[in-house]
Amino acid sequence: MRQFLIVGHEAPTTPSFSLDDLAGGAGRLDILCRCVTSAFVRSHGIREDVRVHLVLNDQFTIQFDGSNLKRLNPDERSTAALIRTALENRENAIGHMPAESTPGVSIRRMGFAETVEKLKTETTPIRLHETGTPIVDIDPPDDPLFVLSDHHSFTNDESDQLNDVTEHQVRVGPVILHADHAITIAHNYLDTSGYEKY
Amino acid sequence: MRQFLIVGHEAPTTPSFSLDDLAGGAGRLDILCRCVTSAFVRSHGIREDVRVHLVLNDQFTIQFDGSNLKRLNPDERSTAALIRTALENRENAIGHMPAESTPGVSIRRMGFAETVEKLKTETTPIRLHETGTPIVDIDPPDDPLFVLSDHHSFTNDESDQLNDVTEHQVRVGPVILHADHAITIAHNYLDTSGYEKY
Repeated sequence: MRQFLIVGHEAPTTPSFSLDDLAGGAGRLDILCRCVTSAFVRSHGIREDVRVHLVLNDQFTIQFDGSNLKRLNPDERSTAALIRTALENRENAIGHMPAESTPGVSIRRMGFAETVEKLKTETTPIRLHETGTPIVDIDPPDDPLFVLSDHHSFTNDESDQLNDVTEHQVRVGPVILHADHAITIAHNYLDTSGYEKY
Repeated sequence: MRQFLIVGHEAPTTPSFSLDDLAGGAGRLDILCRCVTSAFVRSHGIREDVRVHLVLNDQFTIQFDGSNLKRLNPDERSTAALIRTALENRENAIGHMPAESTPGVSIRRMGFAETVEKLKTETTPIRLHETGTPIVDIDPPDDPLFVLSDHHSFTNDESDQLNDVTEHQVRVGPVILHADHAITIAHNYLDTSGYEKY
């Protein structure tokens, strides 16, 4: 399974944001929405063997699970609506137990460190970063967890936590890209690496 | 220069669409907006040596020119607003002359065939298609023009016109992707092909 964790440093933690202002008042939720789309959407369907974890302002983590994900459309606005519905259910997320808001979407009361700690046992965490090893120089790992940040860099605390668990720090090319574009390239690398001639 | 032409088969030809319904009433304008973002946006800036041509319902072509493009943000809604402004200026596009609506964005009264005919002399047209040659098997061409379609396939007429001018038909991987994701991978291929170790 391929998993992606994206940190939204200014992302909303209540459902009171407007779908008309995702790139402004909603703390650049547009970036996180595009990351979800890049992770799941292919032509005429979704990638079922994928999970995405959006860390919202270090307070909540929303998980999208491709194996039973419904109602995901490729546009930003409808993805933001799924996130808003998840936040409407945040009071049902007690302790570290998830609360499912729509099929395949659930919210947990967990920040970055707790989410990474939970996922590291079942994945190979990989930090996508501009100073890393070219992605084509690493062998495709089993069960990769690609960890990315939004328009801000990882904080020092986040970097320290990641350094403790990541085997690889990789970059996708010489041009520094947005997180959603990096996800598309990571997928393509994995898609093509198993094929001599695809 | 890298250029991208994307055909919007149901795209609006008047500015009367709602920014709140890009994926519905606006004829999947969300796809074209994401293509613009994929073509131009990199972290903290845009790719200046890029042009994008959006063919709207075979009636108008809107050109985005990276060398003097302003006001482009990465979210779908603000890109759609630039397209709407271009359509508000459609009456100023007389004959095949462009009408500039905002810096770097102009509209022409040209459909698919006329736009391809105009561009073929200055580019190497490449059709991105699921049955093509793997992109890694072609040498990066000079001045590529990648031609893509929205959520619909090219019509028979469009295919015939493309067959007349394209040297290559390429695919980006074994998984069939949306146009905007294919653009991201095409960029990455060109970005990395000139570097032994990026």
